[in-house]
Amino acid sequence: MTVIESIITMQKEAEALRSAGRRIGFVPTMGYLHEGHLDLIRLARKHADVVVMSIFVNPTQFAAGEDLERYPRNFERDRTLAAEAGCDIIFAPSAGEMYPADDSSWISVEELGSALEGAFRPTHFRGVTTVVGKLFNIVRPHYAVFGQKDAQQAAIIRRMTRDLHFGIDILVAPIRREIDGLAMSSRNTYLSDQERKEALALSRSLRTAETLFAQGERRSHALYRAVEEELTRSETVQVDYIGIVDPDSFLPIEGDVGPRTLIAVAARVGSTRLIDNTILGDEATPS
Amino acid sequence: MTVIESIITMQKEAEALRSAGRRIGFVPTMGYLHEGHLDLIRLARKHADVVVMSIFVNPTQFAAGEDLERYPRNFERDRTLAAEAGCDIIFAPSAGEMYPADDSSWISVEELGSALEGAFRPTHFRGVTTVVGKLFNIVRPHYAVFGQKDAQQAAIIRRMTRDLHFGIDILVAPIRREIDGLAMSSRNTYLSDQERKEALALSRSLRTAETLFAQGERRSHALYRAVEEELTRSETVQVDYIGIVDPDSFLPIEGDVGPRTLIAVAARVGSTRLIDNTILGDEATPS
Repeated sequence: MTVIESIITMQKEAEALRSAGRRIGFVPTMGYLHEGHLDLIRLARKHADVVVMSIFVNPTQFAAGEDLERYPRNFERDRTLAAEAGCDIIFAPSAGEMYPADDSSWISVEELGSALEGAFRPTHFRGVTTVVGKLFNIVRPHYAVFGQKDAQQAAIIRRMTRDLHFGIDILVAPIRREIDGLAMSSRNTYLSDQERKEALALSRSLRTAETLFAQGERRSHALYRAVEEELTRSETVQVDYIGIVDPDSFLPIEGDVGPRTLIAVAARVGSTRLIDNTILGDEATPS
Repeated sequence: MTVIESIITMQKEAEALRSAGRRIGFVPTMGYLHEGHLDLIRLARKHADVVVMSIFVNPTQFAAGEDLERYPRNFERDRTLAAEAGCDIIFAPSAGEMYPADDSSWISVEELGSALEGAFRPTHFRGVTTVVGKLFNIVRPHYAVFGQKDAQQAAIIRRMTRDLHFGIDILVAPIRREIDGLAMSSRNTYLSDQERKEALALSRSLRTAETLFAQGERRSHALYRAVEEELTRSETVQVDYIGIVDPDSFLPIEGDVGPRTLIAVAARVGSTRLIDNTILGDEATPS
């Protein structure tokens, strides 16, 4: 496995690979890999000849007061795990090269970006779409793989890729969970033992909605209340939002939910902010 | 010469050309070609093996009430002129394919975009950077050529290309003028005979500044006043702005001007809005 830090070197490598007819699969990450990330590498491998993973803790998707400084990092561990999972190239640029001193260009997706996560983190998605656009221009992949755990991010990237004609197929891998149901996240490392237990409220609330849906419940407000009840059972868990939305447009669903509905939740457990989601009625992408 | 209308076809052609080691030069235009555009093709030819010109009257760079509907169009004439100047491929997509129905992705450059043209046309540059970003992703050029007449546009595109790591060299061709000095523009066709004469105030005002500069005048306000006096000599000419700015940052220059200073003017002659500019002290890019 190769590690590339320079943008120009990565661009030349990508050009050479494309010219040789090799299909590039790309997995953008912020590092501190867990099995969820490794699933993304494995999915990329299935489609592509060469898998590139970027590791870049992107400053523009953190707001002031968020966890940019304490975001966990362990490059040597990431390198070993990525190689074992089938990654061919790690692209790990510096922030200074990704964002020149007087950088002032942004990519934004107006729809999709203001609801749910966007309402709580108003500058977050602009940072995500901008860095992913930069990375797409550097890595020039045929496929790019994102995780369903960040469902809204995946929908926004899909829209951006289509609108701006990047010519890249976006693949989304299912949520990977711990045995007890907690969605894997690099941020889980922040949780104390007690918080780790309380954090199960997120996945449990989604399982409750799935059970009700399987039993025939279709009323959006009834599903909402069931999720809310489960989430607010503990005082340690502070709910940011519960969204019952269309999984492509992220528009809220009122009245009865349809055959494919996304329930997304965000909550703070102590000082750690966690998100999770499930798609009701979609057996093709189990969460 | 080939005409391509489909985005996918253009992307496949670009990929095949790049894989074959051919260098692509790209000239984005809104059509209704004049010698200024043909200079762009000729400059692209000098650097590239294959020259692609796009013809697309981009709706998002026109505000409501501007001249989108009456913007002049003549595809057959454009096709002949482009071929004669050395163009290999005309890419002429439909607005519906460039902008899907629920398109909501934008590329913007925050700095550079609010002064001068940006102040008078607040949504203009966002439309330009977005469509140029789309076109870059479709045509995948090694070089892209823009005209110095749209000096602020060229500076913004250069910044966008660098910030977002498009990996494209931006070339800027000097302003092409009619024999009497009027900067060539597709919009000159709007001018009546009388307005055509009055329109010379723009280039004349810039010549006045050049003469003063050559004589040693360095005071920004003195240059400004000389340009203003020339522009306001006729009541038919309504000045939008006179900018004396740094040609890269577009920040205004107060006090004394330096060795490389851009003077940019915009004015309405009757109902036609015209722009022109010159770089003082830059012999390498005579206007």
